[in-house]
Amino acid sequence: MPKLDFWYDFASTYSYLSAMRIADAAQAAGVAIVYRPFLLGPIFKTMGWSTSPFQIYPAKGQYMVRDITRIANDRSLSFQMPPTFPVNGLHAARIALAGEREGWIGQFTRNVFEAQFAHARDIADRAVLSAILEDLRLDPEPILERSAAPDIKEALRAQTDSAAQRGVFGAPTFITGDGEIFWGDDRLDQALAWAARAASG
Amino acid sequence: MPKLDFWYDFASTYSYLSAMRIADAAQAAGVAIVYRPFLLGPIFKTMGWSTSPFQIYPAKGQYMVRDITRIANDRSLSFQMPPTFPVNGLHAARIALAGEREGWIGQFTRNVFEAQFAHARDIADRAVLSAILEDLRLDPEPILERSAAPDIKEALRAQTDSAAQRGVFGAPTFITGDGEIFWGDDRLDQALAWAARAASG
Repeated sequence: MPKLDFWYDFASTYSYLSAMRIADAAQAAGVAIVYRPFLLGPIFKTMGWSTSPFQIYPAKGQYMVRDITRIANDRSLSFQMPPTFPVNGLHAARIALAGEREGWIGQFTRNVFEAQFAHARDIADRAVLSAILEDLRLDPEPILERSAAPDIKEALRAQTDSAAQRGVFGAPTFITGDGEIFWGDDRLDQALAWAARAASG
Repeated sequence: MPKLDFWYDFASTYSYLSAMRIADAAQAAGVAIVYRPFLLGPIFKTMGWSTSPFQIYPAKGQYMVRDITRIANDRSLSFQMPPTFPVNGLHAARIALAGEREGWIGQFTRNVFEAQFAHARDIADRAVLSAILEDLRLDPEPILERSAAPDIKEALRAQTDSAAQRGVFGAPTFITGDGEIFWGDDRLDQALAWAARAASG
C-alpha cells in the first residue's frame, strides 16, 4: 500500500483540520498514513521567528482564525482558539512518539487536536494529556513516564531535524514515498492522489 | 450582479494562477470581478520584509515553484519563473489603473501575467508592456504617458493603502461585497460561492 507521511505540530491550527479527516481520506484513497509529529519551533527559529507567524503578523493571524472558522463550518467541525496560542506541544508530541509502536498514535493525535481546538483545553497541561490517554483506555502513568525517557526525547529531536532536512517549513506538510512535498490542509487531497498514482505507476 | 474584488500584485506567482481563470470562473458563478491591482512592497515593508517571502525563506520559495508547477500542469498552463523575481510591477499596475475606465484591465492583466510567468518576459521593461498593449490593439504611447500622470500614481498609492486597511497581507486576495476576505488562489471558488450566496441571501 502506498504511504504518505503526515508532518504536524500539535500547536498548528491547519494541522487540526487535516488530522480530523486524514484517516478517512487516506482509507478512501488506498494510502497508509505515517504520523510524523515534530516541533515547528526550531524550524521557525531558523527563519528568524520566535513564535507563530500568526502572532508575528497580526493581519495574517486574524485572517487565519476567520479562514479556519469558515472551513470548519463547512465540515461541521467545532473550532475555537485555545487559551494559549501557540501552545507548547512538546509533551503531546513525545507521548505520540511513545505510542507510535503501540498503534494508538492516530487516535491520540485526533483527540489532542480536538481537545485543543474544539474544546479550548490546554494540551501543555499534564492532566489534560492524562485524561486523553484515559479516554483511549490506556494507563496514563507509565506512558507519561515513558514519554520522558531519553530515547523518546532524542526521537523527537531527530524527527524535527528530519523535517527541516526534507524542506518542511510549516504544518501540516505531506510527503509522498517518492519525496514530493505538499504544504497545507488544502493540499491533502492532491497529496493522497499523488501518493496513490506514484505507487501504481 | 454580486461583486468580488480581486486584489493582486503583478509580481505575485499565485496571482497568475487566479488571473488566468477568474474571468471564466466568475461568469459561471454569476459574479462580477473588480480588478484591484496594488503593490505588495509597501505592505511587506510593514511586516519587516524588504522583498518577497519566497526570497527571504528559501525552503518556502523552492516549495512555491514546485507547488505552482504541479497546479499549472493540472490546469494545462505554462509556468516558469521570470528572469527577475519579484519583478517591480509598478508600471504594469499603473497602466492597469489607466485602463480601468476603458474596459481592458482584465485582458491586460491576463496578458501581463502570461508574458511574465508563461514566457519569462521582464514586465518591468517598457518595451514588453508596449508590446502587450499593441496586442490588445491599443496605441501604447498615449497610454504609457497617461499611466505616469499624477492622478494615476496617486490612485495606485490609494489602492495600496486601501488594501492594507482591509487587512490584505498577500496576493491574490478576494474580498466580497459584505467584506469577507479570502487569501490565495485555492480560495477563489469559495470566495465566488460566498459572493453569490451573500447577494442572494
